[in-house]
Amino acid sequence: MSKSAIDALAIDLDRLESDIEAVNGIGRVAGQPGINRVSFSDADMAGRRWLMGRMEEAGLEARMDAVGNVFGRWNCGSGPVVMAGSHLDTVPQGGPLDGTLGVCAALEAVRAMKGAGIAPARPVEVVCTADEEGRFGGMLGSQAICGEVGPDWIARAVDDSGLRLAEAMRMQGLDPEAAVARDASDIAVFLELHIEQGPVLARAGVPIGIVDAISGVFNWTVTLTGEANHSGTTPMDGRRDAFRGLADFGAAIPAILAHVGGPDTRLTVGKVALDPNFPHSIAGAAVFSVIGRDVDEAVMRDLAGACRAEILEAADRNGLGSDIAEQSWLPPTRLHDEVAGRLIEIARRSGLEARMMASGAGHDVQTFAHHCPAGLIFVPSIGGISHAPAEWTDWADIERGANVLTRAIAAFAT
Amino acid sequence: MSKSAIDALAIDLDRLESDIEAVNGIGRVAGQPGINRVSFSDADMAGRRWLMGRMEEAGLEARMDAVGNVFGRWNCGSGPVVMAGSHLDTVPQGGPLDGTLGVCAALEAVRAMKGAGIAPARPVEVVCTADEEGRFGGMLGSQAICGEVGPDWIARAVDDSGLRLAEAMRMQGLDPEAAVARDASDIAVFLELHIEQGPVLARAGVPIGIVDAISGVFNWTVTLTGEANHSGTTPMDGRRDAFRGLADFGAAIPAILAHVGGPDTRLTVGKVALDPNFPHSIAGAAVFSVIGRDVDEAVMRDLAGACRAEILEAADRNGLGSDIAEQSWLPPTRLHDEVAGRLIEIARRSGLEARMMASGAGHDVQTFAHHCPAGLIFVPSIGGISHAPAEWTDWADIERGANVLTRAIAAFAT
Repeated sequence: MSKSAIDALAIDLDRLESDIEAVNGIGRVAGQPGINRVSFSDADMAGRRWLMGRMEEAGLEARMDAVGNVFGRWNCGSGPVVMAGSHLDTVPQGGPLDGTLGVCAALEAVRAMKGAGIAPARPVEVVCTADEEGRFGGMLGSQAICGEVGPDWIARAVDDSGLRLAEAMRMQGLDPEAAVARDASDIAVFLELHIEQGPVLARAGVPIGIVDAISGVFNWTVTLTGEANHSGTTPMDGRRDAFRGLADFGAAIPAILAHVGGPDTRLTVGKVALDPNFPHSIAGAAVFSVIGRDVDEAVMRDLAGACRAEILEAADRNGLGSDIAEQSWLPPTRLHDEVAGRLIEIARRSGLEARMMASGAGHDVQTFAHHCPAGLIFVPSIGGISHAPAEWTDWADIERGANVLTRAIAAFAT
Repeated sequence: MSKSAIDALAIDLDRLESDIEAVNGIGRVAGQPGINRVSFSDADMAGRRWLMGRMEEAGLEARMDAVGNVFGRWNCGSGPVVMAGSHLDTVPQGGPLDGTLGVCAALEAVRAMKGAGIAPARPVEVVCTADEEGRFGGMLGSQAICGEVGPDWIARAVDDSGLRLAEAMRMQGLDPEAAVARDASDIAVFLELHIEQGPVLARAGVPIGIVDAISGVFNWTVTLTGEANHSGTTPMDGRRDAFRGLADFGAAIPAILAHVGGPDTRLTVGKVALDPNFPHSIAGAAVFSVIGRDVDEAVMRDLAGACRAEILEAADRNGLGSDIAEQSWLPPTRLHDEVAGRLIEIARRSGLEARMMASGAGHDVQTFAHHCPAGLIFVPSIGGISHAPAEWTDWADIERGANVLTRAIAAFAT
């Protein structure tokens, strides 16, 4: 297929818009804002079944595997497949585009290619992965496809409420003991279109981002232990106030970043619990999250070291005990340079400014990237908002991103 | 009555110990540590009825007024009464001595005086006040006795769960519409023995504290408002992180105290709620308590001003909105200098080291102090612990404090 034929491919924005609106009619809960298609909920499963119907209408072979991944296969040509997609599950009170855009755009790409009379040399598969949002602690769908997790992992996984993944799957008629891994050599390339979920593209006025690396992330639960006591009767110099240790660490974040951080470093305390958490009681304990990220694992190590030193100093200064429990350490993922280069070229041939950039959020593509060539296309998020009802991208930017995805699928499949 | 006869008065520690243990058998809840006699609970009422029985055994006229205050009157002599006591209600999972010591010691004082054949010139009343712990937002019992609150206030008061005080009273057979105020000129003096609830006496090795002032307290709910966003995708320089504002304020507490604080100043952030309070989300809001105390209202005003300035600066620095809601502003209470001087003298004549000191916690005595002469005797709290199951005072110190109370009642009543 010629480059000019690929450059001429274009999606039907009305059709894509109609799909996005249709699937987002599923997962509305009275009294709760946003989209609620939490993994393995009835709404999540209804969204997947809706997708299978739309796949069949587009002439694809639709199937759901044992963990809930949905595939729509355009069974043409031969050899390893070109796979494209994302996920339909959401965080509670999530936004309308996170994951949903990538799934609907991949389906629309196939329809556009079919409509243009293209006969690919390779099979094309649209995929909707299961539990990308990590209700059960991983990226179940993509990791299961890539053989990284199987029935043993599934048997152990539980959500925050203590519900077992295996039980949640059984309630939806899925089989937690079945193997679903695919041979990585069967996937020629995995492509994902996603909203940026950050403000970089929107601020710069750049319509397309091509991701070359996904930040690694460490996730700590820190406990500072002091002594709960009466806030009126305990002199200031006799306190072991766990809140004060937390505050000292929080106030040190700018200094930590100035010392060891780079442009892609992120450091966040997002969750805090004091005990007893009563206005008239000095906090006897503060439990809080520390999430650090960078695209360079050496920077991550320096960041973790600086955080550890500041936590110990804050504990010492306030007479506190400290414990740092590392929940996870995920190294950064480099995406495939050649795939990224081709995506940049396709965007620019489409007349679109495109920027190579890092992703601060995790995506299905990072799982695939350890097993096969993989690429990620970003479109701007208005205000950088995501995981929230106000998450949005201009339809014009959605169209631009979906066209780049379509042309990329066509380029890799022919 | 001669000073030497007063100095010879002594309580029966075994009898006092037996009473404290008996009443603390009421309010034990399976699976919950500590004492649970929350105001107007069945256990609280059972404690009051137990007390009335013990009062009658001691030959006192026992009665409960319409808000639940219990009085045991030794109807001897004439003129205004010497009143002594404290409260039996506890915080949830409270300690065994807070309030309980003062009630049981006042009863034991009367028994000791009777045992010594003393005939006071004035009536003596042992009192157990209702809801000193402020479940319904005040110090109901002492305030009702002093005429500070009445049926109108009772009709408005609700607890944290939304239960109306009037309803809680009716469920216990009390009449929320009855007037219970007593004429202040009928009370010659109010005396209270209480555990310090702080570490000052225990650290100094001093057995008796005589309180000359009770700290005033302001209680703020502060809200810092930023923008909730993804912790991975939002660059550090594009954040409006409400946690960072909270941390900056918390870290400024030592500087605030160095600038405007005195030896009795207390400043505490004990309660914090982030929103959404999720590790991977930047906090869009932080709501926290600020409790400031001092015995000097001018220092309280300076402290409040310095806190306000630091909150505004922390908000500015982090791009946050701020709101300071003052829940209450209670001025400090000076206790009666002459009563305090006599209490010091009585302690010293008893061979006990006694220290004049401020109280950082509120007590029934502060209500009475606005209406009649009033005095407060402290005994050491081990480790400064209170409002917790581990709250305790050595029996030897309890005996010393109860003897000082007994001698003081005798001195004021004769």
